[in-house]
Amino acid sequence: MNEEKTTLGRHREEDGDLTPRTIPTFEECYPSSEKLTTEVQHGDFKLQVPFRRINLTNEEHFDAYDTTGPQGFDPRSGIPKPRAQWVAVRKDRGDENFSQMHYARQGVITEEMAYVAEREQVEAEFVRSEIAAGRAVIPANINHTELEPVIIGRNFRTKINANIGNSATHSSISEEVEKLQWAIMWGGDTVMDLSTGHNIHETREWIMRNSPVPIGTVPIYQALEKVNGEPDKLTLDIFIETLVEQAEQGVDYFTIHAGVLLRYVPLTAERLTGIVSRGGSIMAAWCLEHHQENFLYTGFEKICEVMKKYDVTFSLGDGLRPGCLNDANDEAQFGELETLGELTKIAWKHDVQVMIEGPGHVPMHMIKENMTKQLEECFEAPFYTLGPLVTDIAPGYDHITSGIGAAQIGWYGTAMLCYVTPKEHLGLPDRDDVKTGVITYRIAAHASDIAKGIPGAQDQDDALSKARYEFRWQDQFNLSLDPVTARAFHDETLPSEPSKSAHFCSMCGPKFCAMRITEDVRALAAEKEAEAKATAEAQKLQV
Amino acid sequence: MNEEKTTLGRHREEDGDLTPRTIPTFEECYPSSEKLTTEVQHGDFKLQVPFRRINLTNEEHFDAYDTTGPQGFDPRSGIPKPRAQWVAVRKDRGDENFSQMHYARQGVITEEMAYVAEREQVEAEFVRSEIAAGRAVIPANINHTELEPVIIGRNFRTKINANIGNSATHSSISEEVEKLQWAIMWGGDTVMDLSTGHNIHETREWIMRNSPVPIGTVPIYQALEKVNGEPDKLTLDIFIETLVEQAEQGVDYFTIHAGVLLRYVPLTAERLTGIVSRGGSIMAAWCLEHHQENFLYTGFEKICEVMKKYDVTFSLGDGLRPGCLNDANDEAQFGELETLGELTKIAWKHDVQVMIEGPGHVPMHMIKENMTKQLEECFEAPFYTLGPLVTDIAPGYDHITSGIGAAQIGWYGTAMLCYVTPKEHLGLPDRDDVKTGVITYRIAAHASDIAKGIPGAQDQDDALSKARYEFRWQDQFNLSLDPVTARAFHDETLPSEPSKSAHFCSMCGPKFCAMRITEDVRALAAEKEAEAKATAEAQKLQV
Repeated sequence: MNEEKTTLGRHREEDGDLTPRTIPTFEECYPSSEKLTTEVQHGDFKLQVPFRRINLTNEEHFDAYDTTGPQGFDPRSGIPKPRAQWVAVRKDRGDENFSQMHYARQGVITEEMAYVAEREQVEAEFVRSEIAAGRAVIPANINHTELEPVIIGRNFRTKINANIGNSATHSSISEEVEKLQWAIMWGGDTVMDLSTGHNIHETREWIMRNSPVPIGTVPIYQALEKVNGEPDKLTLDIFIETLVEQAEQGVDYFTIHAGVLLRYVPLTAERLTGIVSRGGSIMAAWCLEHHQENFLYTGFEKICEVMKKYDVTFSLGDGLRPGCLNDANDEAQFGELETLGELTKIAWKHDVQVMIEGPGHVPMHMIKENMTKQLEECFEAPFYTLGPLVTDIAPGYDHITSGIGAAQIGWYGTAMLCYVTPKEHLGLPDRDDVKTGVITYRIAAHASDIAKGIPGAQDQDDALSKARYEFRWQDQFNLSLDPVTARAFHDETLPSEPSKSAHFCSMCGPKFCAMRITEDVRALAAEKEAEAKATAEAQKLQV
Repeated sequence: MNEEKTTLGRHREEDGDLTPRTIPTFEECYPSSEKLTTEVQHGDFKLQVPFRRINLTNEEHFDAYDTTGPQGFDPRSGIPKPRAQWVAVRKDRGDENFSQMHYARQGVITEEMAYVAEREQVEAEFVRSEIAAGRAVIPANINHTELEPVIIGRNFRTKINANIGNSATHSSISEEVEKLQWAIMWGGDTVMDLSTGHNIHETREWIMRNSPVPIGTVPIYQALEKVNGEPDKLTLDIFIETLVEQAEQGVDYFTIHAGVLLRYVPLTAERLTGIVSRGGSIMAAWCLEHHQENFLYTGFEKICEVMKKYDVTFSLGDGLRPGCLNDANDEAQFGELETLGELTKIAWKHDVQVMIEGPGHVPMHMIKENMTKQLEECFEAPFYTLGPLVTDIAPGYDHITSGIGAAQIGWYGTAMLCYVTPKEHLGLPDRDDVKTGVITYRIAAHASDIAKGIPGAQDQDDALSKARYEFRWQDQFNLSLDPVTARAFHDETLPSEPSKSAHFCSMCGPKFCAMRITEDVRALAAEKEAEAKATAEAQKLQV
């Protein structure tokens, strides 16, 4: 633990621009909420499982799933490491395959499984069986001891991922750490660091040491940096060296484009937008240049050896995903999906956890086929999609075009939804974009959970609706995904404090209010019913 | 025509705060676009059907449906009246039922039908037959001669409605006219004036005289003003007097809550949020107070007489729509829907056009049932829904929670989607909210059109994707729903002019670009294919 702190210290000097925190605090973002934990005894350990309690004005409270992580730590020191001891035990007893799937298949319920069971309010044995079957994953690198474990699978709460990361033209380390903190403040379940620019190793180190959520990367980006940006110079050795470097830092899942086979590449030539995945196009370029099979495919078993040593989860990349509606569900895309299924089997042979990445840009009537095919071809491994966007005509609003598709595919069974921000196709997201993307995707994921019948998913909706009906304005705000915005919008029209307890709103005004009339209706209905009952009773007595 | 200008002039003095236009112009909102018309000869008339031509940098252009209406007119004089002469002919020959359905059923293709046929790129006879069957409506009051006719039906482009209107606490006439202009600038197909406050008649007059799109109202709001806000004082006579007043001004469709029957009201007592429709709660209060059947239901035939005299379209209101997920698809809601079907038959007996309003708040898995039931119970009359919102936990983002549901129900067959703005449940929308609401709903409607297979619906997506792939940044912006925002987002990351012709973007940076690699892939694939062909040819020669 101390050693890792030192590592961080080393980078602090070089980085220079690591400025103090500028984002609002938990308390500012969630008025009347408090962070609490449930203690779960698991073997020798007492697990502290976090949740957020929203205190209401009527003495009641509502407990919500909480992704925000530990608060108030200096990012230069990192956050606490609850998993350090759990992992130490496994290392001490000489384990070699640290994957959650490996333990699950041996019938072992790990601390991580017990932890997510409490978080999801299900039995730990159910978690174990889902992981053993490959239907769910807990991405949890043994070197990411800061992690608050998260389960990703279609029989659990739908998760969302937020992408952050600098590029050759933009951003800094401190900005990226704040984007991480900001993304999880609003409900991001995992974060991908897609940095491609300078300080790629240092940026990742800062992110890992400050992240309570699983972190994913696309290692081919860094491998490409190592060969000076020339795809044809890439080799399996350089790639594996990169994997080890990142796995040592604690990255929890790797996007690997091992399904971009040589024979699929020409299938993209007639597309409207060809190959739009960066990783996919790198591997396509390599395949064509060498006229050889993708080395990630041919070397897949070697890659599995690295994965299980650290318990890094595969996120098998969809390098041939469609970049526009016109290219959706074509031969290239579905050919790759079939190969990802083949690779899933190989990974599972090693007890390595697997997710499958999916599109992209797909019109609504073609979304379901993606889910159906994925379940069939990939043996129910969790699906992890980017959107999909259901139209291409709204750059600047692609959080919405994709949120529509995400809600649908989540309902159909996608386990994790990768967010899209308003800046998609146009530029890199800033902090506001990250928040907008995360909240849009929490909406989509939550709507999916309700539609697919996750128990209790609708409780928060019902609590908020009740508060709305009872004119408990503060509770309505505080039960919402973004209390501060809800309150600010209300205050724009009716700023005074009394109106927040008033039994009317700005839509109808004080004189007439639909909800107030409903109360009258209810009272009258009750009265009529009482009358009717009395009459009936009276009649009974007469008979 | 002059007379109507005078009417407007009369109100100018009283209003006081009618300030000069402050919203951006058409040219500012749509760079490189021009407003053009197609001339359609129909009988003695030359119809001028508007469209928007987007001029591209590669000498091509893209023609889009245009709702923006005439530009540059002084709102105090109103806009031109293209329908004045069409209607005059009908009046001169002594017609009594002016409804489009009446003409359609007599086999007549009106100017309005020919106009929308050109707009939708379909045969005029198809338009006529859809209207005759009741599957589509053209809301077109004979006194709204400024109208550019619009068809609403599920076999046509999905339409969207924007609500505007002041309330007792807020807004002014000039603000409402600007909201109208702003709503249609971004693609609103119809606008509802939901004013409940002061100057309700004057506000509407200004809106009618400046609106090229159909205007809808909820007349019970004004009727209630006339009885000093006391629902029990309402009578059929007062209501019909209000209908005539508004029909004289040119309102194109009326929301009328004639399906809120006495026996349905108690069914709402156990709901989480009771009755949330203002009109619904007014009628419920009236029914309970008098313990009599809804006078809109008992007096429905009398109302039909007014409707056909002006060709006002019914929008049969869903006064018992659910106000939260918990109350969705319940007995009260579906009971009312059945009654709306019964009323549809009565209206059609009078050849009066009908739309049916729908919810509201509905979880995704319960949306389809709404559409199925509506088609069955209401004999395929066009469905017109408010969202639906698919979760209740995101006040401040309800354009998104509802856009998800709107896209789905649009795909299933809803003909018009009523927008929801970010201010829903919190306050009255300002101009920015109106724009956000309209663009979100254009996304939903457009995605629906693609999914349900409206011919040509995907053309704009393909044109934009092609521009994106070819790095024609300006064309990508100009082909989008909101060119200025798209360009501004791009410029935040890469502000310099050269980068808009550069063959890279801020996501990958100049050194590596997925799309550039795809070009190489395509070139290499072509080369390999040429080689293979040459080899094959050579082998053929050898054989």
